[in-house]
Amino acid sequence: MKKYLKTDEWNIIEEGFDPDRLRASESIFSLGNGRLGQRGNFEEAYTEDSLQGSYVGGITYADRTRVGWWKNGYPSFFSRVPNAPNWSGIYVRLIDEELDLAQWEVEQFTRRLDMKEGISYRDMTVESPKGHKLHIHVEHVNSMAQQNLCLIRYRVTSVNYKGKISLVPYINGDVTYERSNFNEKMWNILKAETRSDHAYIWAQVKREDSQLTCALTYELLRNGKPVTGTQIKIEKEKLTGFSAGADVKPGDEVTLLKYSAIVSTLYHDRRKLVEQAVKEAREARQIGWNSLLEAHRKVWQEIWDTTDVVIEGDPEAQQGIHFNIFQLYQSYRGEDPRLNIGAKGFTGEKYGGNTQWNTELCCVPFFLLSNPKEIVKNLLLYRYNQLPKAIENAEKLGFTHGAALYPMVTSNGEECHNEWEITFEEIHRNNIIAYAIDQYTVMTGSTSYVAKYGLEVLIAISRFWSQRVSFSQTKQQYVLLGVTGPNEYENNVNNNWYTNYSCVQCLKKTIEYIGLTAQKYPDEYARTCRITGFEISETEHWQEIIDKMYLPEDTEQGIFLQQEGYLDKVLDTVESIPAEERPVNQHWSWDRILRSCFIKQSDVLLGMYLYYYHFDKETVRRNFHFYEPRTLHESSLSPFVHSILAARIGETEKAYDLFLRATRLDLDDYNNEVHQGLHITSMAGSWLAIVQGFAQMQIRKNNTLRFSPIIPEKWTAYSFYMYFGGCMIQVRVTQSDITIHLIEGEQLSVMLYDQIYTLEAGKELKSEKK
Amino acid sequence: MKKYLKTDEWNIIEEGFDPDRLRASESIFSLGNGRLGQRGNFEEAYTEDSLQGSYVGGITYADRTRVGWWKNGYPSFFSRVPNAPNWSGIYVRLIDEELDLAQWEVEQFTRRLDMKEGISYRDMTVESPKGHKLHIHVEHVNSMAQQNLCLIRYRVTSVNYKGKISLVPYINGDVTYERSNFNEKMWNILKAETRSDHAYIWAQVKREDSQLTCALTYELLRNGKPVTGTQIKIEKEKLTGFSAGADVKPGDEVTLLKYSAIVSTLYHDRRKLVEQAVKEAREARQIGWNSLLEAHRKVWQEIWDTTDVVIEGDPEAQQGIHFNIFQLYQSYRGEDPRLNIGAKGFTGEKYGGNTQWNTELCCVPFFLLSNPKEIVKNLLLYRYNQLPKAIENAEKLGFTHGAALYPMVTSNGEECHNEWEITFEEIHRNNIIAYAIDQYTVMTGSTSYVAKYGLEVLIAISRFWSQRVSFSQTKQQYVLLGVTGPNEYENNVNNNWYTNYSCVQCLKKTIEYIGLTAQKYPDEYARTCRITGFEISETEHWQEIIDKMYLPEDTEQGIFLQQEGYLDKVLDTVESIPAEERPVNQHWSWDRILRSCFIKQSDVLLGMYLYYYHFDKETVRRNFHFYEPRTLHESSLSPFVHSILAARIGETEKAYDLFLRATRLDLDDYNNEVHQGLHITSMAGSWLAIVQGFAQMQIRKNNTLRFSPIIPEKWTAYSFYMYFGGCMIQVRVTQSDITIHLIEGEQLSVMLYDQIYTLEAGKELKSEKK
Repeated sequence: MKKYLKTDEWNIIEEGFDPDRLRASESIFSLGNGRLGQRGNFEEAYTEDSLQGSYVGGITYADRTRVGWWKNGYPSFFSRVPNAPNWSGIYVRLIDEELDLAQWEVEQFTRRLDMKEGISYRDMTVESPKGHKLHIHVEHVNSMAQQNLCLIRYRVTSVNYKGKISLVPYINGDVTYERSNFNEKMWNILKAETRSDHAYIWAQVKREDSQLTCALTYELLRNGKPVTGTQIKIEKEKLTGFSAGADVKPGDEVTLLKYSAIVSTLYHDRRKLVEQAVKEAREARQIGWNSLLEAHRKVWQEIWDTTDVVIEGDPEAQQGIHFNIFQLYQSYRGEDPRLNIGAKGFTGEKYGGNTQWNTELCCVPFFLLSNPKEIVKNLLLYRYNQLPKAIENAEKLGFTHGAALYPMVTSNGEECHNEWEITFEEIHRNNIIAYAIDQYTVMTGSTSYVAKYGLEVLIAISRFWSQRVSFSQTKQQYVLLGVTGPNEYENNVNNNWYTNYSCVQCLKKTIEYIGLTAQKYPDEYARTCRITGFEISETEHWQEIIDKMYLPEDTEQGIFLQQEGYLDKVLDTVESIPAEERPVNQHWSWDRILRSCFIKQSDVLLGMYLYYYHFDKETVRRNFHFYEPRTLHESSLSPFVHSILAARIGETEKAYDLFLRATRLDLDDYNNEVHQGLHITSMAGSWLAIVQGFAQMQIRKNNTLRFSPIIPEKWTAYSFYMYFGGCMIQVRVTQSDITIHLIEGEQLSVMLYDQIYTLEAGKELKSEKK
Repeated sequence: MKKYLKTDEWNIIEEGFDPDRLRASESIFSLGNGRLGQRGNFEEAYTEDSLQGSYVGGITYADRTRVGWWKNGYPSFFSRVPNAPNWSGIYVRLIDEELDLAQWEVEQFTRRLDMKEGISYRDMTVESPKGHKLHIHVEHVNSMAQQNLCLIRYRVTSVNYKGKISLVPYINGDVTYERSNFNEKMWNILKAETRSDHAYIWAQVKREDSQLTCALTYELLRNGKPVTGTQIKIEKEKLTGFSAGADVKPGDEVTLLKYSAIVSTLYHDRRKLVEQAVKEAREARQIGWNSLLEAHRKVWQEIWDTTDVVIEGDPEAQQGIHFNIFQLYQSYRGEDPRLNIGAKGFTGEKYGGNTQWNTELCCVPFFLLSNPKEIVKNLLLYRYNQLPKAIENAEKLGFTHGAALYPMVTSNGEECHNEWEITFEEIHRNNIIAYAIDQYTVMTGSTSYVAKYGLEVLIAISRFWSQRVSFSQTKQQYVLLGVTGPNEYENNVNNNWYTNYSCVQCLKKTIEYIGLTAQKYPDEYARTCRITGFEISETEHWQEIIDKMYLPEDTEQGIFLQQEGYLDKVLDTVESIPAEERPVNQHWSWDRILRSCFIKQSDVLLGMYLYYYHFDKETVRRNFHFYEPRTLHESSLSPFVHSILAARIGETEKAYDLFLRATRLDLDDYNNEVHQGLHITSMAGSWLAIVQGFAQMQIRKNNTLRFSPIIPEKWTAYSFYMYFGGCMIQVRVTQSDITIHLIEGEQLSVMLYDQIYTLEAGKELKSEKK
């Protein structure tokens, strides 16, 4: 855990420049707008270690699979969102010196990420080896309003320098990708051109159809007044831009406004790509900095107006939850079913920008509960559209008859991960795809999606399960052999409780929605049967599996087992591990991790979180007390789930600790890995930990919304907005009472603890806290 | 299974040229002499697919580890015996054409590998695109007498060509290694020089100290008479040699004798490497072809005189066993404790020429029983010398206090394999190292090795086991969690019966040899305690493990379990798998293999083979009948073990089928992989299948040698030589009787079936077959 950022409710602040934490800060200060994003790299040159990264959603490169020992079924390629041409660069040159924070003295260095307005600020005073001192002020924005625009205001004030200062806005197509499997460059530069008022790079992803163009325009001001006529055009093979300068004396300032437009073939015809980018860059300059920023701020204001979570009395938690919501919306806007949310968003190379099951586990309920737009429908359609690929994935593993195995890691639906114990065995991922369809149906109250799209997916997933189970003669029950649960710290186990349990739930829900669709949407049902070749007789086998699934448990202790045989392990607790060996995945050999009792995240508890309505509080308590002390939380998906369950069993302070860990995972770098990028998808979990955890929001029988809030001792109050069944409410919990306000909608039944109330439009329900 | 070679007792014969089987034939026709070896590549140019490979034992390249997903504990390098500069090349040029079997017409193509004399012959008639016809005859020898020499006689007879024929003997240092992880070239060429009477390449392995020099001399004859004075020197950056020609008319022949000497820093000072190679190449030319061949033939004669196995009435089996013994001695001579036997010998790149546990499983008993020299002592010393590295390997995985884990794959003792389920978990390999020490002691009757060297190894291995087990509270027994057995078609299992059982045997034997050494060799014992820090109190924990080890079994069926939970699988038999899906490792995805009941080789049966004296025939029979039908034999280590056990339970024809599979694994290419190289180490298994299988040689209580032979119906007789306790005997079994002849030694007790006899020097024991 490395903590170096200042605590502030709406800002992330770093003071002082430390090259050793540069990669971490580059992750933390990432900027994005859902369509494009970038790490918090310096605009100026920096010749020491740094991970330069700018990414455009939906643009992927097929990196040849790298593997030590090939296994049948491995994919040929690993998809990666390539590092795009760097559109943010600005060199700063004096007469014969160039600003480089690795070489110059840096004083009074401050970065500030304003999360309310989505602007990154940087201020510093720098001194060249020759003693020239400058003050630099930078503002950097990826416009949320016009999502193709990156806007930078770069101001240099001379402290003691007299002479020409040149500012060089450029686009550099000669970029590398650190995690490339074979050190390949990912782009072909189709054209690099600098004209009188703009420059651009037109590039194509190697071996792919995808193209993008980055174009730039700029303005140069001296002491607030435009400087013209002094520019030099720069046009190299892979780099274009301008050098524009002005003479200064101490006290003078030179300001560059750089307008970059990034357009891709995802939204534009390749033949008009250059034209479009140049047009947008030119228009941006015309509209001007202030108006562009105004529009950008407005979008953020709208987001916060309905999504803000207020925590009173705990600035650290408040900062964390702001950071998480901020980063989520920077990564994903939910407008395009072709896009999804990379586990690291646009903040690093790890996981290649691909989609994982994190999306369904964390982001689906977050967006479903916190946003009225059809964001989640797009997330579901993403999977629906990839169903044919999921069927192909299953076929590669020997499954037949339209069985689908959704990929562990993907961009276009094809599996691209290549560890057999995960790729082939971490099959529980299929469950969350089905679960999300059910959640969507429950939360929105609309059954048309499942009838029209969801059922096809459910049938294909149920077919997978029905083929993947086998019948054990010994047990006279169905078993699931050779699986890896969400706890990836055990591999290739038999009868992982969570996998077996969720397999049964998938089958049950499918049968349920088959019934519903057949009855309520006979045409959709007929169409689905025709497309999938589904016959109702298939459900007989499914029902048999439901009835006879083996679920490992220890009846004596009243706990479900992580997997069969778990109790043969030496049952230590995490406390017994020396601090210097944590996180264990950075210190222990893999076999030692596997055979230890320590788990990355508890699968049993995950099942109890997802199917909360199946388990009573005592059962949760027993399992929580058994697994939580053995859980390392070395998965970002772990702490929020555990926090929610701790809240459920009334262990408020434990819930708080875990909440803080979930919420400040990256800000406090619990697992010593933030330099690789942020845990974007799991950020949604911290919001869930408030709503489903502290507020104990649950959907009970007959789709009744229920709250039974608790509040950490440290907090004065917390409040959040939530959507359910077409209504929007605001919930506020203090140490003494709970207020629920129906903001949108006419009427809503709400259960508070064990009493049912009816909320009326615009009215408030106020009740004492239990 | 691809069968295309003619059956002949002493020869491997291929008729007709088929490019599709070229790689397979290159493996089959490999030549070596224990110090160097090479695939059966064409000497002349061949511009289509081929795997050119020449290797020098003990010279290794540290290839950077390639892995998709790094795990703590993985080694940084994978050792590979690099492809040495090609010392066998001879271009054949007409006035403006060059012989290339990929482009020319090939008629009457025949290769023959004479295994009795160790000479490879090739004859063919070829026609150039211009219609020039030549007859080619090639003889190729890697001298067993002077192990630095490769000798080639290359004769070209003109059928219809008139003009100059140039023969170009060369050494080419510009070689590649197909399996190189990152396409790196492995050699730096230090010097490439051609002088008037010799040429050489002096090369150094990149990033290593190892160097070698290949030097060549030659003679050119036309119609049997020397041709001189026409040579052209060739000296390129990485290629040296000569072009030497003669004018011919139809019926004339030109013969090139190429003498290559290959010397390395393994045996020579680097400063004298060039000098030495040139000297040896020159001397070879001086000695001349006939004398060199005579010396070479004599070595083979000596080997066959004591190692030949005769099988009467079954030329296929006879050919197979000759091939196996021949290839074994081509790969390893046992004279240098720094060398070991690569799983593929010098016949391919797979496994990188490294040492695996195959050596101890197959080659140790073979050499121990079939050769009077101290070959096996050198194999044991190889491991003894690598003990410090084995301790380091264990330390990397968190073990302490001098515990050793021998590597799965190594050249210098450092683990170089990088699959977690094997590298970290296939720990049974430790057992066979201990077992070999015991075998050596039993077979030779000498305890000095174990006292002086072996005990240190045994203690280190027992320490490993004692730390690797854990105590299960549930079972109240010791368990071994997270292991992979010899059956690599299950990974990361709990309580693999073989691993648990052999762990116990290791501990027992160690305690036994501690007692023996303490009593009989007190000085050695004291020294060993001092060096290892061993204290006798350590054995208390070992004894507890021996007493309380969990061994999974099914008492109802009377079988031991492959691993805990094995019976939960769907228990099909191999017959149920469609032929086109075999071998399954080339057709099924890995997870499907893992969760199926099908095993690569049966671990339980392996245990019953190694510890045959622990299990009665009925127990073996039950386990054999349970596991054999589920065994795929997709490991070369499998069929011979199963054959021996089938023989033991009297199932002669099953034993025969499995023996044939073991013996002709490569000749008949059962697993469709011979193109990658030969299964050198497991070849020893086919000899064991005769001696320990059909003849049922066992060492009984009080070290009594026992035979209870059976003989396949097809065979008239079989006979073999064997060494035991300082004596050499010959055993001959016919359908009716058994003859045992004491060839060396004064007296030997032998048990035949259940009767004990005393063999006298030079006398024969003859008895009826039961």
